[in-house]
Amino acid sequence: MTINPAHVAGAGMIRFGKFPASTTLEGMAAAASRQALNDAGADVRDIEAIYTGHVFGGPVAGQRIAVHLGLDGRPVTNVENYCASGATAIREAWIALAAGLHDVVLVIGVEKMTDRVFGGVKPDPGDLDAAVGLVMAAGHAMSARRYMADHGATREQIAAVAVKNHAHSVHNPYAQYQHAITLEDVLSARPIADPLGLLDCSPISDGAAAMVLCNANGLRKLGLAASSAPRILGCGLVSGSLQIGTDDLNAEDVSRRAAEAAWEMSGVGPEDIDFVEMHDCFTIAEIVRLEGLGLIPVGQGGQWTQDGWTGIGGRLPVNPSGGLLSRGHPVGATGVAQACELTWQLRGTAGGRQVESARIGLAYCKGGTVSGTDGGSVTTLVMSQ
Amino acid sequence: MTINPAHVAGAGMIRFGKFPASTTLEGMAAAASRQALNDAGADVRDIEAIYTGHVFGGPVAGQRIAVHLGLDGRPVTNVENYCASGATAIREAWIALAAGLHDVVLVIGVEKMTDRVFGGVKPDPGDLDAAVGLVMAAGHAMSARRYMADHGATREQIAAVAVKNHAHSVHNPYAQYQHAITLEDVLSARPIADPLGLLDCSPISDGAAAMVLCNANGLRKLGLAASSAPRILGCGLVSGSLQIGTDDLNAEDVSRRAAEAAWEMSGVGPEDIDFVEMHDCFTIAEIVRLEGLGLIPVGQGGQWTQDGWTGIGGRLPVNPSGGLLSRGHPVGATGVAQACELTWQLRGTAGGRQVESARIGLAYCKGGTVSGTDGGSVTTLVMSQ
Repeated sequence: MTINPAHVAGAGMIRFGKFPASTTLEGMAAAASRQALNDAGADVRDIEAIYTGHVFGGPVAGQRIAVHLGLDGRPVTNVENYCASGATAIREAWIALAAGLHDVVLVIGVEKMTDRVFGGVKPDPGDLDAAVGLVMAAGHAMSARRYMADHGATREQIAAVAVKNHAHSVHNPYAQYQHAITLEDVLSARPIADPLGLLDCSPISDGAAAMVLCNANGLRKLGLAASSAPRILGCGLVSGSLQIGTDDLNAEDVSRRAAEAAWEMSGVGPEDIDFVEMHDCFTIAEIVRLEGLGLIPVGQGGQWTQDGWTGIGGRLPVNPSGGLLSRGHPVGATGVAQACELTWQLRGTAGGRQVESARIGLAYCKGGTVSGTDGGSVTTLVMSQ
Repeated sequence: MTINPAHVAGAGMIRFGKFPASTTLEGMAAAASRQALNDAGADVRDIEAIYTGHVFGGPVAGQRIAVHLGLDGRPVTNVENYCASGATAIREAWIALAAGLHDVVLVIGVEKMTDRVFGGVKPDPGDLDAAVGLVMAAGHAMSARRYMADHGATREQIAAVAVKNHAHSVHNPYAQYQHAITLEDVLSARPIADPLGLLDCSPISDGAAAMVLCNANGLRKLGLAASSAPRILGCGLVSGSLQIGTDDLNAEDVSRRAAEAAWEMSGVGPEDIDFVEMHDCFTIAEIVRLEGLGLIPVGQGGQWTQDGWTGIGGRLPVNPSGGLLSRGHPVGATGVAQACELTWQLRGTAGGRQVESARIGLAYCKGGTVSGTDGGSVTTLVMSQ
């Protein structure tokens, strides 16, 4: 089912990092929002509704942010889909714009993960697998072992994902890490869940990203030309029990279905995708998810990475921003940060990390646990110039 | 702004109560959902997307419920707006139906509040007022004192809200409490925050409610006539810093604005409302919110209640279901339970608690804290035959 595209009038984010308790969720979200408003040439009075994606912010975090921004009074919807929360907030905003209920909306993704007020990051209380030790890192370690066994991939090919994404984020002023790393750095890092080490894992991060989205009426209200505002063509959302415990750990059925949803909604196909922002919460995840989407043939993702085909200038640039591994992963903020990167790439304003001829991009988020009985969600956002 | 109405194809809920840990969130939600599906004559295969409202269920509760229901794979959006979470989930579903992205959706409101796995119900970590003692009951006690002082209302008039709502729920098989209480019971109950006692407060509850909503295409898919499926004409959502610390504690500016949103969206006015499901988390809240909406003149709500004008058979029946005070208040479930009651009343199938000539009804939810700096949200759902 296709509905009208939304336009990105403005995008903004703060540099991700680990901030002290004095850096508040509200303050981060407001700073990113003001950047997005400035980018759109819009005023807070132009904003008709707010969609916020976050996990640990509490049930009315969006309302607190609205007060902080001087947007008190507007409709605020808090959306939660674990690491896909920000992307799901974009999806709901896009739907509201297509329905015509609102013409100009603010979408905010935000998370304060290092703040001990919230008691740290814990597995979902209903996640029984995590309770007995099958936490995210363990699941992805199993995925890596399986991938290596099935496809003859090497540890070095998997580690190359981290090297590539750190190389990209050297040019991203919003990334938590802006330094290059070597293959040896990744291989010799502190083990986390064999074969994965510390640099195979995305960090704990604080951060916020925001976008001003509008429909055709909204463009008129803001005095913007459609040609200057990249389009959201569609945002697939599919749920699924993930693959631990099934025959093929890396089948990525949920990614396959998310891709189908994206192609159906957006009217584009895998061959049209010029670059990808991928949910590389772990190095191996970037590889198996790209294969699940059908963007790389199954079993070849390791080789593609080693050969530089997923780097900027390669056949399919993946994570020009640095991805979760290097830009950081404040969970609720990630989906919106990905969409900001898509916006800048499509406008051609991404500076040293610009992908050439970036006309259509895809951003992928996965939220939820890796158990067989719990559920997760995948979002596939497709944007064009 | 008006968008197309949605239709309620089916409504279902479980009896609210305090259940053991063996009664799971997923099980409650699935039971309510199956009732809604049966009521709609629909199968799980008809459901195209799921919107869930909950506060304490964890970031992917909706996905776990989908697995439990055999709906794994569908788009699932978890919506959180504290006690307005369920109502906000209805709103987002209505928007998606109006946009035409989906034709048949399942909306679930659910909460397991008594389960100690979740560590009990605590104020939002960012709610500094609650941290120093200004919890919900204290705020509403101040509201009651102010109302009595300003309008010469009596303690008995405020207590009469609880007597009325318990009398209504004697006829509601889904209510947590199905027994009548006397004025003396309310006045002599254990004090909670003077002047409010235990029976002035809604209980801690577990429960779930669900609805199958569809647009015109969805009605055709399900083979239903529009005349048999009550319509959602609109659902206002406004945020606001509530009134503690301002000059007029009971000004209910947020309710006034929510009413304006409801009238604008639905094309009906306060004079058209035949009955109300009101968020009576505390007795006094029913009175001041009805006045804030403009449904009762300011200062007269106590007298109206004492005179029976807000009872079934009165001038403006309020909470025929028993309301939060007697039906119970599993926070994420409440907004959906209210909409179920609207559905049954509008169909004329509410049995012993049926409101005569119930053609248009309004349901009101308020979510969030009562502090001056934190935010809250109010929803105003308007439904017609």
